[in-house]
Formats: sequence, structure tokens, C-alpha cells
Amino acid sequence: MAGFFVSFEGIDKSGKSTQARMLADYLSRVGCDVVLTREPGGTDLGREIRHVLLTSQFDVRPKAEMLLFAADRAQHVAHLIRPALAAGKIVIAERYVDSTLAYQGYGRGLDLDELKAIQNIATGGLMPQVTVWVDVPVTIARARLDAVVRDRMEVEFDARFERVRKGYAALCAEEPARWVRVDGEKSVDEV
Amino acid sequence: MAGFFVSFEGIDKSGKSTQARMLADYLSRVGCDVVLTREPGGTDLGREIRHVLLTSQFDVRPKAEMLLFAADRAQHVAHLIRPALAAGKIVIAERYVDSTLAYQGYGRGLDLDELKAIQNIATGGLMPQVTVWVDVPVTIARARLDAVVRDRMEVEFDARFERVRKGYAALCAEEPARWVRVDGEKSVDEV
Repeated sequence: MAGFFVSFEGIDKSGKSTQARMLADYLSRVGCDVVLTREPGGTDLGREIRHVLLTSQFDVRPKAEMLLFAADRAQHVAHLIRPALAAGKIVIAERYVDSTLAYQGYGRGLDLDELKAIQNIATGGLMPQVTVWVDVPVTIARARLDAVVRDRMEVEFDARFERVRKGYAALCAEEPARWVRVDGEKSVDEV
Repeated sequence: MAGFFVSFEGIDKSGKSTQARMLADYLSRVGCDVVLTREPGGTDLGREIRHVLLTSQFDVRPKAEMLLFAADRAQHVAHLIRPALAAGKIVIAERYVDSTLAYQGYGRGLDLDELKAIQNIATGGLMPQVTVWVDVPVTIARARLDAVVRDRMEVEFDARFERVRKGYAALCAEEPARWVRVDGEKSVDEV
């Protein structure tokens, strides 16, 4: 694969969407062929799955939720990410495997080895060359979150902020060569 | 768990739904507390997933499809099957893990070890005490299929009939203590 794969990670309201978009805009301006995508919902199927998860009135069990995200990811990788990389493009993904490990693993307490095994199957082992962790303290993220309408995920997530952030720190420490941590407390342009 | 768990397997139009229902009716009549369920679609979430898969205009990739079925199954086990067994009921499931192995593994050529690993995670290792394979030759099933409106799964499946049936035969041979094969060519009452 000739392309380059970057993911952006962080807790909700860390500012990662803004930063991912700014990087995509910059790279496009300097002439790169960039694909900016997100999970869940980077494909048509993914948007259906996202819709089911966010609007669901059902009691979705943690393992079922995790497998729905994995299905979204498998589709995303096969349908969009791999073809784009094969065509030499730069793929910038907002959330990827690390979100699952941080949210479902560290946040919800699902077994990390099981999660990694499923992710590995879903992605066929494809990992980003670089992962940017936009890190903000929980208090900052919570303050930003209060301003927006909360959907189901975000309401549930509220209590898990700290565990998820610790998960990112642990993942970052495990693979320092892949990860770049940036301080999300600074202004948009500084970040 | 004090209950009892039976699954019915077979290619489309083998007659397994009819037989599963007849067994459920019989056991109910003799005073058993029976739950008859099916996959995909045994739960509210499962019905959403089934709807996405059957009506989908998207190009759903095999791994994504397999993970959607696994999500359905995880929900089904956690939400319905385990609680029913824990309450001492008899659970009769139309399709379970073996359908995935036969259809996605033998039928579509997905890696069997990967499939088994994911199934094991989705179900937490819960398998039926007895699995009834309603076996019919492909020609019979195809003749029955022609009479009904084909949805996406069935159209695709048509070409895979023989591989799936061979898959059931292989699974049956692997675990003879769990499997019972019945001849689905006979009349409904004989079966």
C-alpha cells in the first residue's frame, strides 16, 4: 500500500474532529489526495449501524454493541480505507481501533484480549501509521459536552470519561512509536 | 442452568422452521415452558439488524455481515436465551452458531477459526445440548425456494446450497454427540 493512514483519537468533545478536518484541509491545499472519514458511520452500512445504536430504544448489550461497531469497522476497512490506501491516498480517520479499546475495553470493562482479537479480524490487521491523541482533561470535555444535545452514547459515556482517558494513556504507552499526544486544552490553532 | 437448549439447523427451505414449531407446540402441550426463537431477528435489535441485511442496497462485505450476525447473536444470548435457560425453560432456536459456520464458513469461505473465535466471544461459549439438522438434498430445497419471493440472502445463497449442506455434514461429523440428523425429504409429520 502506497498511501498513508492517520487516525485521530480522544474522548468526546476533545476537539479531534476539528483537528482531523484541519489536517485534511491543510494536506489538500498542499496538493495531497486526502480522504477524511469517521467511525461509526464512514460507509452507508455504517450510517445505518450508527443510526441503530444512537436512536435505539432497545437494551443493547455491551458485546452486541461491540460487535456492531466491529461490523461497521470491517465494512469501513474493506469498502473505503483499503481501496483509498491502495490508490495512494492519505486516509484520515476520526476514531478507529483504539476507540474500541478505550471505550469498550477500558470504559466498559470488556475483555481487552477479546476486543483485540475481534478488531484484528475485522480490520485484517490494518493499523494506522500514526495515531494522534487529542487529550483534554475530563472537566474540560464535560464542560464542552454540556452545551450540546446529548444522545444515548454521550449520556452513558459521561460516567466513563476518566476510564476512557486512562485507556488512551495506556494504549499510548504501549505503542509510543505510533502515537502522538497533543494537548487539546490549547486553542484550536495552537493544537 | 436448569433449562434445556435445542437448535434447529438446515439450508433454507429444509423445513426446519416447521419442525421447530411442531416440537415447541408438542412440548407446550405436555406442559413444558418453551421459548421458540430464531436468528437473525430473535430480539428487537436483531430485527433491526435483519432488516438492514435483507433490505440493504449497500455492498455489505462478508466480514461485516458476519459481525452483524454475531452482534445479533450476542444480543440474543444475553437478552433472551440465557435468562430463559436460567429460569428453567426449554429454548428452541431456529438457527444458531452452526448456521454461521455453515453459511459464512463453508458457504462463503470465511476462515473457520476466526468464525469460531468470534462465535465463542459472542455467545460466551453457550452451545445447545442438542442440534437437529433437518437435511434435504439441494434439488428439493431449490424447488421449494422457487415458489417464494427471494430476498437478497436467498438469491445469493442459491449458488452456495451445496457447500452449506456439506458444511452441516462436516459439523455433524465433528460433534456427533450433540447432533441429530433427520431426513427432511419425508412428509412434515414423518419428520
